[in-house]
Amino acid sequence: MSSDWPAYVQNLGKSARRASQQLATLTDAVRSRTLRTIAAALRDQTAALLAENAKDIEAAKQAELAAPLIARLQLTEKKVAAMAEGVEQIAAQVDPVGQTIEGYNRPNGLRIEKRRVPLGVVLFFYESRPNVTSDAAALCIKSGNAIILRGGKEAFHSNRKIVQIVADALKASEIDPAAVQFVESTDRTLVPLLLKQDKYIDLVIPRGGESLIRLVVKESTIPVLKHFTGNCHIYVDKATAGMEQQVVDICLNAKLSYTAACNAVEHLLFHKDVAPALLPKVCAALAAKGVEIRGDDRARSLFTAAKAATPEDWDTEYLALIAGVKVVDSLDEAVAHINEHGSHHTDAILTTDLSAANRFVQQVDSASVMINSSTRFADGGEYGLGAEIGISTDKMHARGPMGAMDLTTYKWVVTGAGHVR
Amino acid sequence: MSSDWPAYVQNLGKSARRASQQLATLTDAVRSRTLRTIAAALRDQTAALLAENAKDIEAAKQAELAAPLIARLQLTEKKVAAMAEGVEQIAAQVDPVGQTIEGYNRPNGLRIEKRRVPLGVVLFFYESRPNVTSDAAALCIKSGNAIILRGGKEAFHSNRKIVQIVADALKASEIDPAAVQFVESTDRTLVPLLLKQDKYIDLVIPRGGESLIRLVVKESTIPVLKHFTGNCHIYVDKATAGMEQQVVDICLNAKLSYTAACNAVEHLLFHKDVAPALLPKVCAALAAKGVEIRGDDRARSLFTAAKAATPEDWDTEYLALIAGVKVVDSLDEAVAHINEHGSHHTDAILTTDLSAANRFVQQVDSASVMINSSTRFADGGEYGLGAEIGISTDKMHARGPMGAMDLTTYKWVVTGAGHVR
Repeated sequence: MSSDWPAYVQNLGKSARRASQQLATLTDAVRSRTLRTIAAALRDQTAALLAENAKDIEAAKQAELAAPLIARLQLTEKKVAAMAEGVEQIAAQVDPVGQTIEGYNRPNGLRIEKRRVPLGVVLFFYESRPNVTSDAAALCIKSGNAIILRGGKEAFHSNRKIVQIVADALKASEIDPAAVQFVESTDRTLVPLLLKQDKYIDLVIPRGGESLIRLVVKESTIPVLKHFTGNCHIYVDKATAGMEQQVVDICLNAKLSYTAACNAVEHLLFHKDVAPALLPKVCAALAAKGVEIRGDDRARSLFTAAKAATPEDWDTEYLALIAGVKVVDSLDEAVAHINEHGSHHTDAILTTDLSAANRFVQQVDSASVMINSSTRFADGGEYGLGAEIGISTDKMHARGPMGAMDLTTYKWVVTGAGHVR
Repeated sequence: MSSDWPAYVQNLGKSARRASQQLATLTDAVRSRTLRTIAAALRDQTAALLAENAKDIEAAKQAELAAPLIARLQLTEKKVAAMAEGVEQIAAQVDPVGQTIEGYNRPNGLRIEKRRVPLGVVLFFYESRPNVTSDAAALCIKSGNAIILRGGKEAFHSNRKIVQIVADALKASEIDPAAVQFVESTDRTLVPLLLKQDKYIDLVIPRGGESLIRLVVKESTIPVLKHFTGNCHIYVDKATAGMEQQVVDICLNAKLSYTAACNAVEHLLFHKDVAPALLPKVCAALAAKGVEIRGDDRARSLFTAAKAATPEDWDTEYLALIAGVKVVDSLDEAVAHINEHGSHHTDAILTTDLSAANRFVQQVDSASVMINSSTRFADGGEYGLGAEIGISTDKMHARGPMGAMDLTTYKWVVTGAGHVR
């Protein structure tokens, strides 16, 4: 560990706090204009950004990173244009700051108002997609927060360039560039130091593998909003007469439309009454698309090509062309299985029975509960939040997809006329 | 540490989680009826409760606890009646569960609803007032949460009896009594074990001294809502012509109406233009009531009876008959002082100038910001929240006074008709 790190980290926090105090007083006109300047600069400097990105790609190839990882890292003119467009969309959103959440007069004439204000300073850990850098910076500027970015080391050069573009735009708007800072080292010993800056940082959002998130939770004295990935389920209820084709379509969509997404389905539960008819049909359709089926004994008796699932399978988020399949005796057994083995991210019921749908919604303890739709809809864009900073698997503060509004807190503003108690 | 503790603690968490799943499905009629049963039982069993309380008082006297502490511990018929009434008031509140926070249709026809649901399981640390036990249990039952109570060891017998009364009422309503559990030991080695039960516990609320809260934050892998006490300020602006008597009244009320409360004022800041007229008047009135004044140099030149304040004074929450007094050159200096030295709890401005009031409200980074009223109003009851579980000094999830609503989260309920993405 560099002996300079403690001072470096404290300075990051202090300067971010100072910048956040300025940001909190800016109008949305200034914040949104700055975002449009950033978008324009991303377009203007595409070539320079691609040159920096090429350094990351070269290093990734030399380190023999897997092809899908390199693909996520790689920027193109089209991807940079999409980044710029994303920033403009965030600029166009309704201002999340200053809204009155509640306002009322008390019997003694005191006026009470609960008013939305920025959180302050956000520390954001994320992996290797460079577009996340511009999205996160834009969401924080829009919501009046300062942000400290710590991206994956694979994207170091790309991220540094993006943050430089952002800093130039901030300066042009006479905003303290410390509003968006980038941790200028990939040294891991910095991480525990950052996580102790509770005097200056209000929130940590770690997006990444489970081990990173566990480390952050263990070391942090700052509140953490976790973004664990999803072990999502679809339960096919006994009341599915007439919707057999929907069952097949939804299971295929949820597994295959983006298999590596956290809202992709991993496990399918079939009620015993409909399993003989539906389970083989769904499994055959998945297998035809290259999905490996792992089943419990009853599932395997209905779809003999299935491998035997191990107990670990039910707790596993595959993010791959694998699906666990199980037959259950009742809706209660499905709910109990999901609450025990799921990750409280997104779970769906397919049914025509209103009462079954209501019980499932009430009892499944997940951020998103879907009725007759694909788990893939659990997404900030699909929910109409605009860009998302993450999908919270926590229950505190924000749950499920998080947009700019979820980066705010509130302040009680109490107005009297000489009131004493 | 007892070798049985890990199993004991895990069982507390597991059974609370199980009970919370039942609670989440109950109607408000059942939850509120149970609360009324608890209130009746508190009244019926007053004598037995006072007998248990006498054991705590006897032990406290033998341990030579300070008189104010014993006074807080002591129950009387009147205090038990107030506890019962508090539980009934919580029963009468609007059901916080099941409310639709937002609901809308997406362009593709998907119906999105953000619905309020219980958090799950709350772990609550608190000090020696036994009435907090019935309040906290009632707030959690009302909001459909299970709670694990860990009260101050001084109130052990009183708290155990209250929880037994609650458990009997739960059983009479056919609710799993694990909904409200009491840690049956005052052994401190239990605490770190409890704080690792993130699989079963959703939220920790520590109410108590700063060292307890720091310990909880350090050890916990569960989200923590902190309830630090308050270093509160009043800033007397230069625009106070015509409100001189209000300034005196508010400063006295904020300091003296309940000196040991977290919303009592600790430090008074006077704008230099009005300090010569107002500072001596306020300080003399406080001193006449026995308050020791500690001032900076300029304050001492205006009120010579003041002692010299040390740099530590400005960071100190006295909770005693002491007030720090300082002269500032501007509103900006007052805001900077409050944001640097305050505890982000409650701070007030006294002014007739609308623009000064607005700047103060926008720039002071505190949970409650008061205009022309006493800091003592920062309270769940005064804000109309009903009983409060605490006053959060955090910015995440809930800020300032927290009522039953703040013990809920939400769930995204998404309804489609075979929607795929």
